[in-house]
Amino acid sequence: MLKRSQLQQLQARTAEMLSQHSITLTPQEQANIEVVEFGLEEVERTGLQIVVYINTDRYCAKELILFPGQTCAQHKHPPVGTDPGKMETFRCRFGTVWLYVEGTPNQVIQATIPAGSESYYTVFHEIELHPGEQYTIPPNTWHWFQAAQEGAIVTEFSSTSRDELDIFTDPRIRRTTELVEG
Amino acid sequence: MLKRSQLQQLQARTAEMLSQHSITLTPQEQANIEVVEFGLEEVERTGLQIVVYINTDRYCAKELILFPGQTCAQHKHPPVGTDPGKMETFRCRFGTVWLYVEGTPNQVIQATIPAGSESYYTVFHEIELHPGEQYTIPPNTWHWFQAAQEGAIVTEFSSTSRDELDIFTDPRIRRTTELVEG
Repeated sequence: MLKRSQLQQLQARTAEMLSQHSITLTPQEQANIEVVEFGLEEVERTGLQIVVYINTDRYCAKELILFPGQTCAQHKHPPVGTDPGKMETFRCRFGTVWLYVEGTPNQVIQATIPAGSESYYTVFHEIELHPGEQYTIPPNTWHWFQAAQEGAIVTEFSSTSRDELDIFTDPRIRRTTELVEG
Repeated sequence: MLKRSQLQQLQARTAEMLSQHSITLTPQEQANIEVVEFGLEEVERTGLQIVVYINTDRYCAKELILFPGQTCAQHKHPPVGTDPGKMETFRCRFGTVWLYVEGTPNQVIQATIPAGSESYYTVFHEIELHPGEQYTIPPNTWHWFQAAQEGAIVTEFSSTSRDELDIFTDPRIRRTTELVEG
């Protein structure tokens, strides 16, 4: 649940961060910045800001903006009909991102799992991305990611996005942010 | 035909332009910047620089870099088997781009058609893109584009790219740049 005033403040902060890194949005895109609150009432810890540039039946592109230490909760993109599930390439534009996917778990990870949610983070194969570095996540693969202390901007190139079908490890999570006046 | 020394100089100029606009490449990406010379021996007038971020059987993403006044020659992406042809979204990151596609021709266009190639430019429906603005070109549609006086950086989000199958209006054009030592 997000108050409208909080949404607007987080949208402004996101636009400012993009602007500082030479990424220009149209006024309409600024007004449509998606703040994903995940329903956990701790958006600056577990949350994510998204600008959808284009999403067609053939491809999708988004800007993902993370505030310092902010985490996108563990999820995967399941197969849909003949589609094997969303495949996505994360290209870091600014900051440092720790991305965790299925595979050999790191003994020690650099991210801090959001307190109280430890049991819902189960994949720990760490990929550290700096500006200019990228990683492609196969379809139907558990993953989560967190920005280091500066925050991060990640451009996502992918197949078609169907966010509403994302599966989260944490059953408390709601992918669609509930907005309340105030 | 491009001399290796010319390729390296144009790659360095491209990397510098990207760097000035907060777009970071890995050393390997810098070394692999594609300079498309089109076989016309006038690369700074008819040519294009490309960084391919990712090209899979599901989606593709590239950075297109144009020097001041540089033109990407008129071409289209034809159907291939069950694929209706490459569909692409051009998002302007820096500078001004004049994009021409099929449709009602503008009476006056802002771009300057490369001298001596006038007969190979036949679509004149003009779209002017500034930073933050984007346009999606349908598959199998003739198009060409030119940067204004500052040059331009355009991120291209698209379906799978098969450059070798591109069709050009100008029969003299070669999509694959021939490199010679020197």
